[in-house]
Amino acid sequence: MYSLLDLVLIDFYECDHETLLDADRIKEGMLTAARLMGAEVVAHCFHTFKPWGVSGTVTIAESHLAVHTWPEYDFAAVTFETCGQGMNHEKAYGYLVEFFGSKNAKISHQKRGFMDTLQGELAYKQEVG
Amino acid sequence: MYSLLDLVLIDFYECDHETLLDADRIKEGMLTAARLMGAEVVAHCFHTFKPWGVSGTVTIAESHLAVHTWPEYDFAAVTFETCGQGMNHEKAYGYLVEFFGSKNAKISHQKRGFMDTLQGELAYKQEVG
Repeated sequence: MYSLLDLVLIDFYECDHETLLDADRIKEGMLTAARLMGAEVVAHCFHTFKPWGVSGTVTIAESHLAVHTWPEYDFAAVTFETCGQGMNHEKAYGYLVEFFGSKNAKISHQKRGFMDTLQGELAYKQEVG
Repeated sequence: MYSLLDLVLIDFYECDHETLLDADRIKEGMLTAARLMGAEVVAHCFHTFKPWGVSGTVTIAESHLAVHTWPEYDFAAVTFETCGQGMNHEKAYGYLVEFFGSKNAKISHQKRGFMDTLQGELAYKQEVG
């Protein structure tokens, strides 16, 4: 059965505390992860909460990436949602393990957007425009 | 076991074609969904691809919402990722079914960010700052 989207959820436990506090550093880390995955970055939005915690999204031509950090638990939740073939999720994931200094990362991978009436190859992605 | 995040995935099939083409309308629809859910909107990013298709993210104090549309398949994929108690996902979902004119919507709900060492109530959310 064809599906339009891959959804990769990564829960990073026991992260480097200082990294989780720093929105600028996290933005650079997420943009690097997007590039390592082979994604084309379209836009990004990062925000720092009070007293701490960072939320960010990266819109890519292939869908999006998101991150939310809980410095009080040394925890970050990262989502990759991508369409198309050939995205290197593993490379991006490996980079982020190092980036967050996570001693314990849980990863899951699922598919969504099932298209049981379609045949053949699905469109890779749209032009950024 | 405590978890930090609720992840709601909604695949909207057989949507109104014109709605899926219109980034401004979709932005308003997603912001309305965020408000109906009880979320506090922090930022948003919407983009229209060529020849068509819209991707958007809404950063909320409770994490984020995302949407990706495939007008060629009359399909939209929506994600709600939220922390804290009392988010009204059902109200937002019901609104979006009407908004997209979807004749067939598949919804799933999962949890992530399990914290098996924590006890008691988790922090509701951070201040927007």
